[in-house]
Amino acid sequence: MVIVMRHKATDEEVAQVVGQIESLGFKAHLSSGEERTVIGVIGDERPVEPETFEVLPGVEKALRILKPYKLASRDFHPDDSVVRINGHSLGGQQVIIMAGPCSVESREQLMDAAAAVKAAGAHVLRGGAFKPRTSPYAFQGLGLKGLELLREARDEFRLPIVTEVMSPQEVTLVAQYADVLQVGSRNMQNFALLHAVGEIQKPVLLKRGLMATIEELLMAAEYILSHGNTRVILCERGIRTFETATRNTFDINAIPVLKSLTHLPVIADPSHGTGKWELVAPIARAAVAAGADGVIVEVHADPAHALSDGAQSLTPDNFNKLVSQVRCVAQAIGRTV
Amino acid sequence: MVIVMRHKATDEEVAQVVGQIESLGFKAHLSSGEERTVIGVIGDERPVEPETFEVLPGVEKALRILKPYKLASRDFHPDDSVVRINGHSLGGQQVIIMAGPCSVESREQLMDAAAAVKAAGAHVLRGGAFKPRTSPYAFQGLGLKGLELLREARDEFRLPIVTEVMSPQEVTLVAQYADVLQVGSRNMQNFALLHAVGEIQKPVLLKRGLMATIEELLMAAEYILSHGNTRVILCERGIRTFETATRNTFDINAIPVLKSLTHLPVIADPSHGTGKWELVAPIARAAVAAGADGVIVEVHADPAHALSDGAQSLTPDNFNKLVSQVRCVAQAIGRTV
Amino acid sequence: MVIVMRHKATDEEVAQVVGQIESLGFKAHLSSGEERTVIGVIGDERPVEPETFEVLPGVEKALRILKPYKLASRDFHPDDSVVRINGHSLGGQQVIIMAGPCSVESREQLMDAAAAVKAAGAHVLRGGAFKPRTSPYAFQGLGLKGLELLREARDEFRLPIVTEVMSPQEVTLVAQYADVLQVGSRNMQNFALLHAVGEIQKPVLLKRGLMATIEELLMAAEYILSHGNTRVILCERGIRTFETATRNTFDINAIPVLKSLTHLPVIADPSHGTGKWELVAPIARAAVAAGADGVIVEVHADPAHALSDGAQSLTPDNFNKLVSQVRCVAQAIGRTV
Amino acid sequence: MVIVMRHKATDEEVAQVVGQIESLGFKAHLSSGEERTVIGVIGDERPVEPETFEVLPGVEKALRILKPYKLASRDFHPDDSVVRINGHSLGGQQVIIMAGPCSVESREQLMDAAAAVKAAGAHVLRGGAFKPRTSPYAFQGLGLKGLELLREARDEFRLPIVTEVMSPQEVTLVAQYADVLQVGSRNMQNFALLHAVGEIQKPVLLKRGLMATIEELLMAAEYILSHGNTRVILCERGIRTFETATRNTFDINAIPVLKSLTHLPVIADPSHGTGKWELVAPIARAAVAAGADGVIVEVHADPAHALSDGAQSLTPDNFNKLVSQVRCVAQAIGRTV
Repeated sequence: MVIVMRHKATDEEVAQVVGQIESLGFKAHLSSGEERTVIGVIGDERPVEPETFEVLPGVEKALRILKPYKLASRDFHPDDSVVRINGHSLGGQQVIIMAGPCSVESREQLMDAAAAVKAAGAHVLRGGAFKPRTSPYAFQGLGLKGLELLREARDEFRLPIVTEVMSPQEVTLVAQYADVLQVGSRNMQNFALLHAVGEIQKPVLLKRGLMATIEELLMAAEYILSHGNTRVILCERGIRTFETATRNTFDINAIPVLKSLTHLPVIADPSHGTGKWELVAPIARAAVAAGADGVIVEVHADPAHALSDGAQSLTPDNFNKLVSQVRCVAQAIGRTV
Repeated sequence: MVIVMRHKATDEEVAQVVGQIESLGFKAHLSSGEERTVIGVIGDERPVEPETFEVLPGVEKALRILKPYKLASRDFHPDDSVVRINGHSLGGQQVIIMAGPCSVESREQLMDAAAAVKAAGAHVLRGGAFKPRTSPYAFQGLGLKGLELLREARDEFRLPIVTEVMSPQEVTLVAQYADVLQVGSRNMQNFALLHAVGEIQKPVLLKRGLMATIEELLMAAEYILSHGNTRVILCERGIRTFETATRNTFDINAIPVLKSLTHLPVIADPSHGTGKWELVAPIARAAVAAGADGVIVEVHADPAHALSDGAQSLTPDNFNKLVSQVRCVAQAIGRTV
Repeated sequence: MVIVMRHKATDEEVAQVVGQIESLGFKAHLSSGEERTVIGVIGDERPVEPETFEVLPGVEKALRILKPYKLASRDFHPDDSVVRINGHSLGGQQVIIMAGPCSVESREQLMDAAAAVKAAGAHVLRGGAFKPRTSPYAFQGLGLKGLELLREARDEFRLPIVTEVMSPQEVTLVAQYADVLQVGSRNMQNFALLHAVGEIQKPVLLKRGLMATIEELLMAAEYILSHGNTRVILCERGIRTFETATRNTFDINAIPVLKSLTHLPVIADPSHGTGKWELVAPIARAAVAAGADGVIVEVHADPAHALSDGAQSLTPDNFNKLVSQVRCVAQAIGRTV
Repeated sequence: MVIVMRHKATDEEVAQVVGQIESLGFKAHLSSGEERTVIGVIGDERPVEPETFEVLPGVEKALRILKPYKLASRDFHPDDSVVRINGHSLGGQQVIIMAGPCSVESREQLMDAAAAVKAAGAHVLRGGAFKPRTSPYAFQGLGLKGLELLREARDEFRLPIVTEVMSPQEVTLVAQYADVLQVGSRNMQNFALLHAVGEIQKPVLLKRGLMATIEELLMAAEYILSHGNTRVILCERGIRTFETATRNTFDINAIPVLKSLTHLPVIADPSHGTGKWELVAPIARAAVAAGADGVIVEVHADPAHALSDGAQSLTPDNFNKLVSQVRCVAQAIGRTV
């Protein structure tokens, strides 16, 4: 950490900061410029917050030097982590495609979607049984019955399943049915849930919060990793900005930034990242061109009658086209689907 | 809801939209302008989402007419709701002051803070036992021991207690100790938690998410209200914007907007709303001037050694000054502290 | 426009709104729902602002139905506009590459960059003579001398020139030297400047403001178009969000959204869109995969000694790689470079 | 500046950074931590940008220590600057009130508004003659005729005038009529205009851009100050965020932050800061409670027929109430109106 003293900070103020640094077990390193004194903190600063120093008299600001995460960092794990999902490797040369309906609504609806995405070449089936909904009056998911239908689809189409878990006490249950547990955007900083999924041994798909910085996403991953689960998949799904033409702003920059900061695999969700089905294919292509290790896409046989997210769901036909396009782009940058 | 058709939408497309409207039990009302056909949906649109129509061919967009919340709305409950917290009335003529440390760290620290805030005139003691922290390596709170210390302080200083609850399975426990349960910003859309606090009969302090719209805050309140708990207190605590000079941007506009949209009491948290102790008093004054029913402020006897949020905590002396200033401003607009 | 009355608005309030509608030459169309009366405004609403009605008693809100731009809209000009820049066609099948230094610094620096980008296959040379800089103490550009050097490079390398114009009185001068005039992000709503470039007959490259919505960008284009200049090129260059890991957030969604709303060509600036040279190639690939008609990239022979934007400038070698990669991606979606 | 090297940066990389520092005339100061080497740059770093170093191999990031502005800074000018506007002192003990219509529309409209604001106790009359409008089809202001009407109102009501100037070539003209020249939000980084108003000797009211940081606002002020005009007034008028319930988010934190960083006077514009007339009085009270030196408010005798900004304009009656309320709040914090 680097502590910047205010213009004309007194010697006593500097001494007090040095005292605080040393009392925490660090070494202090002074550097007096023309207008400011700057004090370096030597040691592993991660457990310390800048405000520990900013509160002292005479301090203008304290700046972190080290990133606050360690297990998620490429500095400490230079090689790409590859997460195995049944037969498939996510984070390697292949681009993985996950697809399926937003919510599981009925056996027929799920089987239709599963058949369609399997035929188009998807590797993993998605579908929500427990649904986080902004309105208490909206469809909240089929719950356990949804999980059972997902298992049926899994067996019939030999597709591993990714589905969301919403609270710590449901983790064990959902882990009995799912191959990958999803932590949704609105729960990215639900620390009790992160703790719980950190203690199981199944891959976790961690979606970036719509208000979360890239650093906060990596800190959320660090929570899971620090509890022993090393199979974390990150997902960019759009952030909230002032722009209202789209439901969210897909942060394409986050793809290469994450690939450089962390060894964990990174996938893209162009359905939530845009909120409009017409935009899903172009943004899926863009994400793969930018280096995403996979995409997760909402597909529904009859979007006009979907109980949730119809506007951003692709028909089987349009999903087919998306897969072909993504395949061409993947080849253009030396990868396969 | 109003559905705007695309330029040159065909008659069949219009007919399909009308069919969808009627199949959902609404009446359709057509209006053909020079460039666009617009279709009104007559009926209680709340359970329906705009995308139900936006996914249909020929539809440009669907716009909500009614607000999606009902129980939280002033339309359906014109008079102010007053929430009783032990002897105090929040939401009436008096401005209520809640204060105390960010985290409960030790008996001595809590008792010092409680004595100080009581002496300065605070009505409610705050303090965190379960702490949501961005980093898994940071102090996570004392848990149950923290709750016990809060009860001790409550009894000794006759101050009702507000403390945070982080997961559904802890609600019953926390409710045994706290007079008011806090749902933190990062959990504002933790729907499992909202459901759980909706089923108890204690006041809930619901903090606005740092990237939640005012409407989403009211929808989160609606979750709690719809499960039967009518004692919901809303709290503006700063939103996330591009500005980095402060930790958050305190949304002062939200105070009068909320007071006009809802009957629920609205308080302000200038500590999190700014992140810097020097700014807490000016923003507390501003919030009261704008119509807030109360403030919640972080106070620590020794901010430089606080285990969390030191940079935004007031010393007892500075808190004393804040209370005097807030009292003067409250009188200027015809209220008392 | 659709005007939503408040819950329990009176008949007199409704009558006053209808009066206002009719006094402006429109027809009113009433629709009474269960909870609200909604009034449609029939006619070309573009010159009218919603607040004309929102200010009336009993009105909750007024919602636009028509987009406020017309000349820029695909509704009124369904086919793609192709802008000719000397030999090249922007907005057609080919992806156009513009490249060069941020600022013109010296003859040697410009000629080195021009030679490099020509060799790599760029179609247009960029370079700033008048530079908008956040600090009054930073390098402000070479001005007229910079324009003369650009002409020299233009003649020697047979590359058309794009350069920025910062104020109305410089438009005539810059138009004597440049093939394309750039209106920079910070001037996107400098209406005096938009007016001035609307009166010349050279292509204008209009960069989206870092705070501007897609609709505001199209309204800025409408200013230029409405003064008679039909050759407007739009450029997405990153918007400002809460994320600080990158200089800006490149709004990849804006590419397909713009292509659907307008007939004007759309290019991408991954240099400003990211602020970091390592991210420029992935985002250039992504933009082309999403449908951009071209890219504009900062290239400098010695970025470490650039007088501006060094951190986001590519070396000639890295630019060469970018062009190859963009070519592959363009082919993957059926276009050429 | 402090330069943070990457994990495992080589000695050559460190040496190259040191070389760059010294070639720019600074001294380098090395500090080797356990995981990173950090290099301090000793000297006045203001003219140098972090990217000058970030582009070098092995550099992770460069952090500014000094603020980039000097003339605007309280470090170099500790006492408050008081700007005299005819008889009135802005930036001292008194809270100054500026009010009037958004646009000058006609003699009658302006005189009505001027009479009303004078009667209510305003000190300065506002009114726009040159209007920046998002749409080319909207009313663009009366121009020179508007300036003449403003002079008439000035003479009749003995109210100094503040009015906007939109381009460099109009500065001399507007300065002949106005007592204070306003630079609008969308022109906050129109550097040619800042340069031009820096060369006159009249007070300048500089409005914060709707997506400008506090630091960028101070840099824009620095432009004006660096060209010799010391009479700069800053104005917070709301920033753009994700919240759509209000036109802008009034950044109340900016008031005390600016008062601590700069000696320049700071006023508040609650009309643009909210966009809704019902919110103007609460936010005006809040701004004064937070320490604003004045407010600027839109007033129109007949808001429903205003040619611009009707929805946020107060009637004379409501403006009267605002002045009384602001007076009470000012007294509560020891100031007068």
